[in-house]
Amino acid sequence: MCAALVAAPADLIVSAGKVVTMDGQRRIIDNGAVAIAKGRIVAVGPRAEIDKAYTAAKRIDRPDALLTPGLVNAHTHAAMSLLRGMADDVELDDWLRRFIFPAEAKNVNEAFVRAGTRLAVLEMMLGGTTTYADMYYFEQAVAEETKKAGMRAVLGQTVIGFPAPDYKTPEAALAATEKFIAAYRSDALITPAVGPHAPYTNSEETLKAARALANKYGVPYLIHVSETNQENMESGLKHHRLSPTMYLDSIGALDGRTVMAHMVWAGSNDLQFVKTRGAGIVHCPSSNAKLASGIANVPAMVAMNLPLGLGTDGPAGSNNDFNLFEEMDLASKLAKVNTRSPKVLPAKTMFEMATLGGARALGMDKEIGSLEAGKRADLITVSLNEPNGAPAHDPYSMLVFSLKASDVQDVVIEGRVTVENKRPLTLNPVQIYKEAAAIRAKVDASLK
Amino acid sequence: MCAALVAAPADLIVSAGKVVTMDGQRRIIDNGAVAIAKGRIVAVGPRAEIDKAYTAAKRIDRPDALLTPGLVNAHTHAAMSLLRGMADDVELDDWLRRFIFPAEAKNVNEAFVRAGTRLAVLEMMLGGTTTYADMYYFEQAVAEETKKAGMRAVLGQTVIGFPAPDYKTPEAALAATEKFIAAYRSDALITPAVGPHAPYTNSEETLKAARALANKYGVPYLIHVSETNQENMESGLKHHRLSPTMYLDSIGALDGRTVMAHMVWAGSNDLQFVKTRGAGIVHCPSSNAKLASGIANVPAMVAMNLPLGLGTDGPAGSNNDFNLFEEMDLASKLAKVNTRSPKVLPAKTMFEMATLGGARALGMDKEIGSLEAGKRADLITVSLNEPNGAPAHDPYSMLVFSLKASDVQDVVIEGRVTVENKRPLTLNPVQIYKEAAAIRAKVDASLK
Repeated sequence: MCAALVAAPADLIVSAGKVVTMDGQRRIIDNGAVAIAKGRIVAVGPRAEIDKAYTAAKRIDRPDALLTPGLVNAHTHAAMSLLRGMADDVELDDWLRRFIFPAEAKNVNEAFVRAGTRLAVLEMMLGGTTTYADMYYFEQAVAEETKKAGMRAVLGQTVIGFPAPDYKTPEAALAATEKFIAAYRSDALITPAVGPHAPYTNSEETLKAARALANKYGVPYLIHVSETNQENMESGLKHHRLSPTMYLDSIGALDGRTVMAHMVWAGSNDLQFVKTRGAGIVHCPSSNAKLASGIANVPAMVAMNLPLGLGTDGPAGSNNDFNLFEEMDLASKLAKVNTRSPKVLPAKTMFEMATLGGARALGMDKEIGSLEAGKRADLITVSLNEPNGAPAHDPYSMLVFSLKASDVQDVVIEGRVTVENKRPLTLNPVQIYKEAAAIRAKVDASLK
Repeated sequence: MCAALVAAPADLIVSAGKVVTMDGQRRIIDNGAVAIAKGRIVAVGPRAEIDKAYTAAKRIDRPDALLTPGLVNAHTHAAMSLLRGMADDVELDDWLRRFIFPAEAKNVNEAFVRAGTRLAVLEMMLGGTTTYADMYYFEQAVAEETKKAGMRAVLGQTVIGFPAPDYKTPEAALAATEKFIAAYRSDALITPAVGPHAPYTNSEETLKAARALANKYGVPYLIHVSETNQENMESGLKHHRLSPTMYLDSIGALDGRTVMAHMVWAGSNDLQFVKTRGAGIVHCPSSNAKLASGIANVPAMVAMNLPLGLGTDGPAGSNNDFNLFEEMDLASKLAKVNTRSPKVLPAKTMFEMATLGGARALGMDKEIGSLEAGKRADLITVSLNEPNGAPAHDPYSMLVFSLKASDVQDVVIEGRVTVENKRPLTLNPVQIYKEAAAIRAKVDASLK
């Protein structure tokens, strides 16, 4: 018997009615399948061919579903799940000063962050997110909980110019960040990162020190930039007429892998520098709308082919959920009505933003974001056996404009099945909801 | 034994952790319940009191859910579910002339409308909608399917100035509408209506004849008004400087129960006339955004306390679903970012728009829209045993900004349980999806 005719062993085969690959040719394969071994995709193709070439210990077959890359939530604050809906319908300043900062100062500790992360990861995973980028406190605890749940994440330890729940000075935060990076730098699921909060909440010295640290270990530098018009105006007055982006560039903070959240008020000159420096942008349409920050010029970012992902931002008043299906839908609708053109940000562009675009923004597009042999095996199936999934039509249109997070049927991350037929396999919802209720009761009491 | 101490018989008792009544005082009752008999609410109160006062043949107890009035989708085209995603990301004119009109001309017949209505009603019902307002063709068939499913609806038979799939002239449509009204005018679930498509697609004569017919039977007059800027501008040129609203008023078309969909380009003078005439408005945020029509001045409508509901519009490119949870969320976010104020259209206002507001817009607020003794028993429970439902906080905030259509657990319409624990009891999803796929294949083939 010739060796070439023997089916190779794989750990897992997932098949579906249509496979949306997001590969270089944006192939969509009818009755397709993906074979997975050792956490990586080994082959993508028609199911008949995959089944001939591979035998698998486990299979998931979904003839009535789409199989796609897992979604990338490129900017959030996971543990704020416990502060969900803390303060809706209020001014940004009130929101921060009257609600969020006092709630955090009184309540955020390591146990809070662990419980909040579990809740957030459960919601994200059930809704098809396989990678998220976080900026919060106690990121070591976030890393442990995320890893336990089998989720992939880029975790930015916050560095900020005032006393934070975990570290009282930026110097202490930077020192702890270095230890955190050392512990996780070669982890399969966790990419540690430096998270200087924003240009306006850190000194130049801290922003530079954070950059030096990121570059020393080759990890991403996550930062909020140009979220509000006020931030932009104050930057000009404070930094010799420079916008937040130009200011960061002037101090060398963009010299390395940078992930810039929001960029609502970025001008075309700012975007040109983002492109030149190879930085990534994360668009957060729900947050920017709900807090009335503004509408980012996403069509320009797309036209320039910037590395551009989508983020939910935190759920404590600025969203209030972790739902990338809603972000895709909203980003397209906002851009259409804002530009008065129904053609901008079509479905295919939006699905790319939620997958490969997010991966590019995070600097991970060689590893995730599409279904291609050699990439890490992060994928989801989305059921079409739903009223909003019928009748089937263009897969991109369905994924962006009619299918929902609740239609996600299976989730595979690093080759491991973490959700099967809508049931989470790595987290305990009952326990998580109970913890969340208990902690929230304490938070609410602390503010009375 | 004293008669007052004997528990009265009810058909159904539904209890929940919190009851959001939307009554005059906007009471929220912890551990509340609703007793139902003969299709009507007989009592609303604390569960302990209701259980003492009533015994029921059936009960549904949801300690981990919210119990609210059913949602009102005040403007849609249900059977267009079969044309879902027919043409996304294209100009409105292309959408109508290249896709929708040809697809309808070649495919829409009574069988199409029946299958499309079943699919739409299934999606609406599973997502918590208990009343919908329709404008389409073959409304007699829509009525039969809606009634069979146990759904409530206001059904406007389309009258339009060119040959339609059902009737070739407005005269024929008006004659058929009269028969339709006669057949359903005293139905518990179906409110028949006249549906003159728009001011610009009907002659003055037809608009007046439609009004006369509506008034003869005291039924609503459903019409699209001021959806696009082009419509507004053309109206001024054609009708002696009058906006579409003013034109309708000038010919007496607003003298009676009128339901005006869209009103994106309505000015404050138009809104003043709407108020004076007692007409209702239906805001369709997804459609207006996706087709880039514009953003309606909803804060002004709310400030004037106009009868104002929410609609999904049709799903054939202008939405693409029937999801009022998304419309509530989107309407609030759009208004916030459009006015640059995070305070406008807060959660409570949005939930009112999706319930009592829709009922007012349709002229049905004496019958539906809130949980009050004497009203028709249309209510839903929404599960909080969902990651996006934890931790529990303000019920309005949750309903608008974090809970989803997929979290709807039970649906009761006219006292009948139509969805129980997320399972539809009056419709067969497998059959409906199969029909939808078969018809859509024919539609797609017809356009090749």
